[in-house]
Amino acid sequence: MNSKSERHIPTQRPQLPEPTLRRLPWYLAYVRTLAAQGVEQVSSTRISRDLGVAATRIAKDLSFLDIKGKTRIGYDVASLERTLTDFLDFTTSHRAVIIGAGSLGGALLRDTGLAQYGLEIVAAFDINPAIVDTSVCGVPVYHINDLAAVARTCGATIAILTVPYQISQQAADDAVNCGFRAIWNFTPVRITVPAGIAIANTSIYAHLALIYNRMMAGGEPAPHDDLN
Amino acid sequence: MNSKSERHIPTQRPQLPEPTLRRLPWYLAYVRTLAAQGVEQVSSTRISRDLGVAATRIAKDLSFLDIKGKTRIGYDVASLERTLTDFLDFTTSHRAVIIGAGSLGGALLRDTGLAQYGLEIVAAFDINPAIVDTSVCGVPVYHINDLAAVARTCGATIAILTVPYQISQQAADDAVNCGFRAIWNFTPVRITVPAGIAIANTSIYAHLALIYNRMMAGGEPAPHDDLN
Repeated sequence: MNSKSERHIPTQRPQLPEPTLRRLPWYLAYVRTLAAQGVEQVSSTRISRDLGVAATRIAKDLSFLDIKGKTRIGYDVASLERTLTDFLDFTTSHRAVIIGAGSLGGALLRDTGLAQYGLEIVAAFDINPAIVDTSVCGVPVYHINDLAAVARTCGATIAILTVPYQISQQAADDAVNCGFRAIWNFTPVRITVPAGIAIANTSIYAHLALIYNRMMAGGEPAPHDDLN
Repeated sequence: MNSKSERHIPTQRPQLPEPTLRRLPWYLAYVRTLAAQGVEQVSSTRISRDLGVAATRIAKDLSFLDIKGKTRIGYDVASLERTLTDFLDFTTSHRAVIIGAGSLGGALLRDTGLAQYGLEIVAAFDINPAIVDTSVCGVPVYHINDLAAVARTCGATIAILTVPYQISQQAADDAVNCGFRAIWNFTPVRITVPAGIAIANTSIYAHLALIYNRMMAGGEPAPHDDLN
């Protein structure tokens, strides 16, 4: 961890409520759009109207950041964009590897958007002889048997899990044993990890069940929609 | 909607709690893994141990399905797999289009996994002359100006939103105006849609903020982790 990211960790950071953390990227995308339009100031009332989030909630969310709005003027758009980007740690480079460079894994390797949010994919692993020892978009693809060896030297802390569901838990165990501190799980499997290992689930396919169900229910807003 | 999917919609379906719906795909992936291992029966106690979900919660979740476990034996794995797949509507074909066939959109076009969960991508839209009028993995890429015309004939009800964030809301509005009934939003923007339109957010990049924060917090489990 470099000195820059340390500078941006306030002592109260672990107490940041996750629902707040989930909304901050909305505000960031929103103020970036405003900045692109040349807008310089924005009130929480306007943010509220445009995003459909209560103004009081917005003010409370933003109170976790080191930024103050001005009465009757609002927030400075450029400052808010910079503060949010730093707070969300999108400017620090976080090194990651992809375990399973097949359909979805290969797709993520090709997604240049991740780099804009601080994620640098430095290696991929698979067992398919057709792709092992090749490279995809400049990222080398190793045999999964080389995971431990590459992990020791590549400096990555995050393992992105895009393996077939049958081996999700085994692959997660291997990643933990190789010293990865976070698992970003894209498989539909509920994997378990030891205490101290961060996990985030982005179960794309599982989200399809939500969509199908919400369509059947006539599109009515879901109680936990905010937490998606 | 075909007769098959209608057959699988119990009248209480809209009241299914979303947290339950979010856990059902875990159970499905789990029993599929068991089935591949030749396991024929599974108790909720064993599911609980392997998935880290309370046995009472599992029993309650599965009570929404038309399936009963047997005392001291548990659930029949094959029946549970079939019932979950049907209930989650993964066997019905749901037609979708991709709006924005760039980095992430192009990646999803190449992800064959979606078809296994009932999603059939029938068209993609973009403005980039390098890809408009080509096809990606057999899916034709049209100019975005053709959205209304193609929407009338392609039979798709779901619009997958993978456009640059600056135009997310506009693209969502266009999709709604073209008659799409659901928006699957992959952009980091909080888009708003009229009542009656289903929306699901899979904000991949926003999830990075969760991972970074959970790593800084030492990987401790997040209160809303279940809802990812």
